[in-house]
Parts: sequence; C-alpha cells; structure tokens
Amino acid sequence: MLVAPGTQALIQLLPRLVPKSRVAVLGPTYEEHEVCWARQGHDVSVVVDVARAASADVLVVVNPDNPTGRLLSAEELGHTRRLLVVDEAFIDFLPADASLAGKLPPRTVVLRSFGKTYGLAGLRLGFAIGEPDLIARLATELGPWAVSGPALAIGRKALADDDWLVATKARLERDGHRLDALLASAGFTPVGATSLFRLVRHDDVPAVVERLGRHGIHVRAFSRHPRWLRFGLPGTDAAFLRLASALQSVSPE
Amino acid sequence: MLVAPGTQALIQLLPRLVPKSRVAVLGPTYEEHEVCWARQGHDVSVVVDVARAASADVLVVVNPDNPTGRLLSAEELGHTRRLLVVDEAFIDFLPADASLAGKLPPRTVVLRSFGKTYGLAGLRLGFAIGEPDLIARLATELGPWAVSGPALAIGRKALADDDWLVATKARLERDGHRLDALLASAGFTPVGATSLFRLVRHDDVPAVVERLGRHGIHVRAFSRHPRWLRFGLPGTDAAFLRLASALQSVSPE
Repeated sequence: MLVAPGTQALIQLLPRLVPKSRVAVLGPTYEEHEVCWARQGHDVSVVVDVARAASADVLVVVNPDNPTGRLLSAEELGHTRRLLVVDEAFIDFLPADASLAGKLPPRTVVLRSFGKTYGLAGLRLGFAIGEPDLIARLATELGPWAVSGPALAIGRKALADDDWLVATKARLERDGHRLDALLASAGFTPVGATSLFRLVRHDDVPAVVERLGRHGIHVRAFSRHPRWLRFGLPGTDAAFLRLASALQSVSPE
Repeated sequence: MLVAPGTQALIQLLPRLVPKSRVAVLGPTYEEHEVCWARQGHDVSVVVDVARAASADVLVVVNPDNPTGRLLSAEELGHTRRLLVVDEAFIDFLPADASLAGKLPPRTVVLRSFGKTYGLAGLRLGFAIGEPDLIARLATELGPWAVSGPALAIGRKALADDDWLVATKARLERDGHRLDALLASAGFTPVGATSLFRLVRHDDVPAVVERLGRHGIHVRAFSRHPRWLRFGLPGTDAAFLRLASALQSVSPE
C-alpha cells in the first residue's frame, strides 16, 4: 500500500506508468480518469458497461460509481488486463466486504480516498493498494516527502477513531434523507446516489443550473446526460435553508 | 507563478516536460535534481562550474547552493537554454535582490520553498515562477487540488506576517553562530553554510558519522567529497546539548 497526497495525484500518475494502451473508463463517472489517461496519449473510450471493455488493455472503474452509485462485484470486473484501476473513493460507508481490495485479478490497483469520508476534503491524503512492483513505481514517481505532515498526523488520528467514522456516517445519512426529501418536493426524480451526492433527473436542467447559480449554488450537469443533475450534500443547516429557498424559484407551480 | 505541494513535486515534474536532453546539474548539491532528471531518461552530468555546462540543453542550479552556500548572479548563469532551473530553496534570508526571479533569460523556472524558511518543513508548499506556457504545463501535470487546504491557509498567513520571517531569521542566525562555535571547538573546519545547515571538513568523516550515529544523530556525508560533512541546525536547546555531548566522543584529544 502507498500513502499519497490525495487520490487525484495517483489518477495523474497511473497513465504515466503504462505503455500506450486502449483504455476503457466505465462511465459516466469522475471525469479526471478519462482526462488524465487521454492527456498521456492513451486511446481512451468511455463505455457504459464492462462487456464493452472486452478488448481494452486498461479498465478504470469508480466503484461505487460517482454519481450513479452503481456497485460492481469482482466477478463482474472480469479477467486479468494490463491494468485494472478500481477507484473506491466512495466506499467507506458501505459494509467492509464491499471493497474489492485483495479480491481482484493480478495487475489491479485499488484507490482509496480519505477526506471525503472524514469530512476533511482538501487535506490531500489517499491510498493505493496493489502489487509491490506497481506500488514501488508509483512511490518513485511521487518522490520523497510527498504527503504533508498535517495529513499524516490527522489521518493517523482519524483512521484510529471508529467513532469519528460512525458519527460522520450517521450525519451523512441523515443529511442525505433530508436532501432526498427536499429534491423530491421540488420535483426532481432520483437517479442515483453516493454518500456525498444525489443524482436526479429534471426536464430542464439548463434552467435549474442557471437559476440556482443566481443564488450562488453550483450543481453539476453532465454533457452526455442532459437531463441529469448532481447535488452535493449541504454542509450546514444554513446551507440546507439556502438550497430550499433557491429551489422554490425553480419548482413547478 | 504556480503554487505546488512542495518544491520536490516540481523537481519530479520538470524532467517530464522536456524532450530527452543533455542536462547539467551544478554540484555537488541537493541530489534529487540529478536523480529525477536521470530517472526520466535524460543524459545528466554533475558539473563543478557553469563553464562546463556550455553544451548542456538544460542547466539546474541551486542558488544559494545547499550545502556550500555558493551564490551565483544572473550574468554568471549565462545564455538562454532549452531550460534553466534555479532552485532558490534557501534564498529567503538573503537580501530581497538576491533572487534571480525576473532577471533571467527566457525559458527559466525559479523554484521557491516555504517550509524551510518558516519552520514548517512537511507542510508541502512551494512555488514555481516562470513563463506562462511552462507554468501552465506544470499546472496540468500537477492536476487539480494539488495543494492541501492547511498548506494554503498557513501559507497565506505566514507570507503576510513579516514579523514571522524576521523572528525566524534572527533565531536561525543565533543558532547558526552557536553551531559554528560548537563545530569549531570540536575540530571541524568550516566549508560553507546555508541558513539551515553548516558544511565542514574533517579528516575522518566515516568515524564521525558512525560515532554520532551511535548517539542517534544523523549527519550528511558526500560520496564525491569524502572529507565533507553537513550538520543541520539543532532545533532546541536540548538538541544542542545532545550534539555537544555526542561531539565530545569524536573530538581530538
């Protein structure tokens, strides 16, 4: 296992370690996977299911997926490839056996996040789990002293504190239900979810984005799915009230 | 200018942005420059003065140098190359006009450190100053959210606090004189210095390294300069006393 300054640093590095490949990203998902592989000159396609990645040298899967919440099993991820990347950024609140670390074919790297789970986005701490040779190459490319002292100290404390995880999980579940209710009453149809996001459908996404934007609220639209919208969980009561108030301006009569 | 998670992250990245080149590192110096350029397949040589780098495509200079303290002027660094890298990690306590940022030929990148100066090693904060196209390529390779929230917040506070810099400088100067006196009385000959280190000469470096090591004190030897030794500044009175006690066991009678 390798400790890294956030999962994004690993997403940037992995495409540099592999010769030019056919890369399939199971999507739609976190777009930086596709962007980073393409930037390093790989032949990248976004596929909607694993069956369409049969001929790819490299498969990248966010599991559970952001934003849809889709969760695949080790069997569904199939055979050994040049490289299989499983990004488990959103797995911490699922039962422990949902993680595929240790259950996958050779030449797999599992990415784990930290800040999302513990409410510390921006701390820059993440992990790669894989075979020693791949981990050693990632470590060399990251270089010495890559992870900050604060990240190491806070990470050590948080990961040893089960109550922290339990309390965060309870808070996120409560806030998630509250957001579900708010979005339902504003006329959105649920499509998927992760612990930190809700994905919904709406008939006029551009109008919603624009009107919420006028209230200073940014929601995520998806160019390949023009009726999808992703809402992040508001972090405070005040933020919930602000979102509720803004949603009134976009609701059907 | 680019904000990065420490200068080391930039030292790792720069060799990836340049086609295979003849690279001269003015040395001996911080060894990661040579290591990182060589790892990316460049033809690297360590040269003892700039005149011997006349045919190099890329020149790397730590200025002032660690460990010797040697300080070069813009004129001494000479003509335009494919890339000139000037690592100013130790410049913060010199007069402001010692920095070569803005005074160098095109295709130069100046690296600045933060943690060394402000007593916050391990925070992971550093800067690259250069032309917009090179800075943009470095930013792309670093990726989004590369710098931690704590580093941004603490850096913003520290860089706006002139008293912090003045107080640190006064402390390091006082501790530097104290270390100079200790090393002189233990029979070492001064060779060079930066704000955080003293470089000295000794006739039996392996014996000193080994005996200090038995006291849990690590000093830096140099394979290419077998009579050189580098001492870091002790951080506390207790550390000074510990070093003084350990030095007694290696002193001449």
